[in-house]
Amino acid sequence: MFHGKVRAVGFDADDTLWVNEPFFDQAKAEVAEMMSVHLPSEKFLEVLEKTLSRNIKSFGYGVKNFVISMIDAANQVAPGNVKSSEIERMIDLGRAMLFNPVELIEGVEEVLQTLGSSYELLMITKGDVAEQQRKIDLSGMAEYFDHIEILTEKDGAAYESILRKHSIGHEEFLMVGNSVKSDILPVVTIGGSAVHIPFHTTWVNEVVCDGELCGREYVEISEVSELLPLLIYS
Amino acid sequence: MFHGKVRAVGFDADDTLWVNEPFFDQAKAEVAEMMSVHLPSEKFLEVLEKTLSRNIKSFGYGVKNFVISMIDAANQVAPGNVKSSEIERMIDLGRAMLFNPVELIEGVEEVLQTLGSSYELLMITKGDVAEQQRKIDLSGMAEYFDHIEILTEKDGAAYESILRKHSIGHEEFLMVGNSVKSDILPVVTIGGSAVHIPFHTTWVNEVVCDGELCGREYVEISEVSELLPLLIYS
Repeated sequence: MFHGKVRAVGFDADDTLWVNEPFFDQAKAEVAEMMSVHLPSEKFLEVLEKTLSRNIKSFGYGVKNFVISMIDAANQVAPGNVKSSEIERMIDLGRAMLFNPVELIEGVEEVLQTLGSSYELLMITKGDVAEQQRKIDLSGMAEYFDHIEILTEKDGAAYESILRKHSIGHEEFLMVGNSVKSDILPVVTIGGSAVHIPFHTTWVNEVVCDGELCGREYVEISEVSELLPLLIYS
Repeated sequence: MFHGKVRAVGFDADDTLWVNEPFFDQAKAEVAEMMSVHLPSEKFLEVLEKTLSRNIKSFGYGVKNFVISMIDAANQVAPGNVKSSEIERMIDLGRAMLFNPVELIEGVEEVLQTLGSSYELLMITKGDVAEQQRKIDLSGMAEYFDHIEILTEKDGAAYESILRKHSIGHEEFLMVGNSVKSDILPVVTIGGSAVHIPFHTTWVNEVVCDGELCGREYVEISEVSELLPLLIYS
């Protein structure tokens, strides 16, 4: 389907190459449970999401903002009633996340290996550079990529600048990822192609409303291995 | 003095090119004052330094670790008695630091401009990449440097790897900075030269004991402009 036209394939990393969001979800659930004496869990999670989203503007994506925002949210929900042991636990949860193992999503290595002989491969991720670099190193996947880019924000301008830097035409580029907001929408908007692989859990801040997608076309698959018929055997 | 031998000059950034530590000191003083109902300020500052130093291993250098560590230290010192407004203030202090203006140290621009015509110039800093990049951009100094490196840790291995990358011989390299631990000691240890410009305030975690320096030689000056006679008119 994309064969002949596309010559460079970009891959998102978190929840596309390896598991990420479940670690955050697990920590959120634990803190929500902790706070449930003050507020029902789903209400606390709403406050936490709003807090995370606001704090990203200052503290960026990643575990450090997550720690600050858990404490911040708990402090809003139960002012003066957040226990010392609870704050300690939130810091420890974050610390542990920074030492999590990196679990590749099934099929990833085979797909990268196969595509690598026919396409220029780019890893395009966003977030805290140190955190992303740690995961890249642990994943063992760096060798499959021609270029690795860690961005602050994945918007049209950021993709434009990467394509310019590597002399890739918009129409020659295909982006693969789990986030419609970060991986699909900005790429199709600038004239590239995109394949969406929904991960079973996607962060609420990454969900876009349908309206924004109106008129934009992209392909949706359920597993990374389905890329091969789209890019190799077509 | 270094003329003829040195061909590449590395500059530390925080508190060598621009003011940094005073912003941290100011925030520390405010939080210590806040906590003084529980513990004398100098005692609190000791706890805070230990906490910062321990947390760096997980959360790295920079403002985000600073916010987490302020809360962590307050929580240790006054468990169950840290007010909601105090936690909020600590988060706000960090947020504000991320939007601080960048104030160049006097003489820096002239020195870079002058040295640039005779030497390869490198900026070698450590810390959170996003935070450092923001300061680099705001400083307007990037144009004077041939290479800019943001490291996780400034040790001998890190300097070795930079010199290798840019094909600079150890004896051809001179490092300039305010931290004996990060800018001077590792460089003289691998056979480079170093000029120390003490900043009026140096973070306690960056102070090395004399023993470590035994037998190592470096030059100490009090202002960046004193580099010129050492490197140009000698």
